[in-house]
Amino acid sequence: MSVKIRRLSYNQADFSKQMNDLLSWESVSDDAVNGRVLEIISEVRKHGDKAVVEYTQKFDRVSAQSMAELTFDKDRIQQSLARINPAQRKALELAAERVRLYHEHQKQDSWRYTEADGTVLGQKITPLDRVGLYVPGGKASYPSSVIMNAIPAKVAGVPEVVMVVPTPDNEVNDIVLAAAAVAGVDRVFAIGGAQAVAALAYGTETVPAVDKIVGPGNIYVATAKRHVFGKVGIDMIAGPSEILVVCDAGTNPDWIAMDLFSQAEHDEDAQAILISQDKAFIEQVEASINKLLPTMERSEIIKTSLEARGALIHVDTKEQALEVANIIAPEHLELSVADPEDWLPEIRHAGAIFMGRYTAESIGDYCAGPNHVLPTSGTARYSSPLGVYDFQKRSSIIFCSEQGAAELGKTASVLARGESLTAHARSAEYRMKK
Amino acid sequence: MSVKIRRLSYNQADFSKQMNDLLSWESVSDDAVNGRVLEIISEVRKHGDKAVVEYTQKFDRVSAQSMAELTFDKDRIQQSLARINPAQRKALELAAERVRLYHEHQKQDSWRYTEADGTVLGQKITPLDRVGLYVPGGKASYPSSVIMNAIPAKVAGVPEVVMVVPTPDNEVNDIVLAAAAVAGVDRVFAIGGAQAVAALAYGTETVPAVDKIVGPGNIYVATAKRHVFGKVGIDMIAGPSEILVVCDAGTNPDWIAMDLFSQAEHDEDAQAILISQDKAFIEQVEASINKLLPTMERSEIIKTSLEARGALIHVDTKEQALEVANIIAPEHLELSVADPEDWLPEIRHAGAIFMGRYTAESIGDYCAGPNHVLPTSGTARYSSPLGVYDFQKRSSIIFCSEQGAAELGKTASVLARGESLTAHARSAEYRMKK
Repeated sequence: MSVKIRRLSYNQADFSKQMNDLLSWESVSDDAVNGRVLEIISEVRKHGDKAVVEYTQKFDRVSAQSMAELTFDKDRIQQSLARINPAQRKALELAAERVRLYHEHQKQDSWRYTEADGTVLGQKITPLDRVGLYVPGGKASYPSSVIMNAIPAKVAGVPEVVMVVPTPDNEVNDIVLAAAAVAGVDRVFAIGGAQAVAALAYGTETVPAVDKIVGPGNIYVATAKRHVFGKVGIDMIAGPSEILVVCDAGTNPDWIAMDLFSQAEHDEDAQAILISQDKAFIEQVEASINKLLPTMERSEIIKTSLEARGALIHVDTKEQALEVANIIAPEHLELSVADPEDWLPEIRHAGAIFMGRYTAESIGDYCAGPNHVLPTSGTARYSSPLGVYDFQKRSSIIFCSEQGAAELGKTASVLARGESLTAHARSAEYRMKK
Repeated sequence: MSVKIRRLSYNQADFSKQMNDLLSWESVSDDAVNGRVLEIISEVRKHGDKAVVEYTQKFDRVSAQSMAELTFDKDRIQQSLARINPAQRKALELAAERVRLYHEHQKQDSWRYTEADGTVLGQKITPLDRVGLYVPGGKASYPSSVIMNAIPAKVAGVPEVVMVVPTPDNEVNDIVLAAAAVAGVDRVFAIGGAQAVAALAYGTETVPAVDKIVGPGNIYVATAKRHVFGKVGIDMIAGPSEILVVCDAGTNPDWIAMDLFSQAEHDEDAQAILISQDKAFIEQVEASINKLLPTMERSEIIKTSLEARGALIHVDTKEQALEVANIIAPEHLELSVADPEDWLPEIRHAGAIFMGRYTAESIGDYCAGPNHVLPTSGTARYSSPLGVYDFQKRSSIIFCSEQGAAELGKTASVLARGESLTAHARSAEYRMKK
């Protein structure tokens, strides 16, 4: 089993075109899926619980006859902690605690200041009232995803986090429920798909309407999230996962190969790229890839991913490496170099930066503390990891003193009249001292 | 000219249904507009400047033959300051300075902390590279919008803010250009519509591709922004503007009427609502509305807006007033009461809160300091005023010490194996001490 990975060099004439090809990714929208999702949303809005139960019976092949049977109460959620093995429980608890500690640093507080004339300006920062967390069921059921999505909401102070997770063929995943317990999730419903998204957005007799929906899902879930956006907030619609490893040849090539695998094993569309100034090292990593691949459980997925979307890129200088890294704006950036602090100031765009030879990306995925929900497909150019700030919102505060209103009114009046908005001007002028 | 405004009472049997009717607003999507916009985006991606110039000639009836003729350079932008009247220039400069001072408070800095074993965690906060600002041309051309959108980007440290503003029939609006000068906009192109949005998102020979597009626009602009979202970031797609005034009957009813007008004059879909515990006061405000309306330049728009979407709501208690305010989650909330600080803790959702009898909403629209780009249509439940935070992004920092990697690796390994992600586990295990 030998892997053919694309080899690129910064110096080749068509490097820029090759990079465009490598990075191009447009999610396909599917008219059939779109129509189906719109119908499901409409049915759930009209018929509430009844529609949700019927879709769940049909799509998830479950026997439940009512939403009551599709509800996990607080006790059942807590019981799951006793049902999983103690090592897993301990790992979940440790990860949750570290994620909580890190996210506490992101919490923002209201602020205000008072001007000389007594006018007060500021911003009041409050948590969202209620958040919905989508968790996929079946084989792609990840407890780490529960922790990463629920804990920032709880740190923000969201009073109620409602989770939905389908239980196809009545199969309940106790590790996912245990993660919900550890993360402080308040209620769990055993529903999924577009019907779960619609229930969270519009509410049913049993499922409370939320203010924002977060969490990963398949094409039906992603499409439904797009459609309910505006009624509720949503997180980003994620593209395939990616890693960019930059290595100075000082790290064990087996480690680098495994780091690339750890991204490629997610799915066939995942992207793993290595940049190095050292051609011989690139060849060593390629040899490690070929040596280690047969030992991997997901070797077929890894091979497909590396051949379709992977790349080994040679550059001549550190500046070239940085330039390419900033063009890629990767979800995960591993700086496997001797002095990563020296590189950091020049990194402008990346979801998460893994510094030094000892920081495996997978540590960040599970338990280092930072969030594993990160901007993909170059969107790190303008967006951020999921965080407490996604579950807080701000209201501007303006409290004019009589004197402040008189003074500011003059400016408002001139500008409002310049825009022909006379009521704006007169409203300000009423408050000006005679 | 007498105005018929809906009167509601918290105690009426169907109050909740009436509120739903009052607040319902779904933006209509238009298939014809959608198709046209997709075609324009596709042409601009294929033909760049040529397509942009042709669309601009056609839609804006301009004589320019090249992008060079549609470009305002730094000198031309600066010259506009001398072309407007000095009172307006002074007002723009004063507003810009106050907006800048307020937004400085929102700027966030990178942070990090070091754990006992030497592991470093943090978040690196950086400005976006380049931002595009859409400004409508013609009659709805608002210099205040330039200030409110460009200054937060500049405070965030965005090196290049590119503005587009159409010049229909070759008409250049010098006040808008002067606002661009005052706000520190770097380049201005005289283009608009979906073609301008496409040019900013994908870049042309002349227009540089940006990372995020902000600013208001018509249905073509809003539709184009939706389509380019993902390639670039966008701000929210705003609904009609709204104000909720809560008054304890202690404010001059003429002032309150004018405050309602100042929202209603924006357009026929704008929404102005008054809540009071005092029935007699509500009638006084209604009398003021009827008295003042004939004196307003935009009386027709105000009348249509108040009759279609306005309301005067009577409640019995402060608690009821607060409950209704939080259900509405208004863009602008005016607390025209004796002690607004006493009300503030109970306000959970509002874009901006105008406190006390002297704080006219229009002061906030122009020059108090806070942003006038605010969440509409109840989206204050989960979103915030435009701010510096919209032009900064974050990258997680993880720098494990050797000891930290060994310790964290254990947890990552257990959780990764629990999710059947073996490469993740092995990548962490390589870094564990033997």
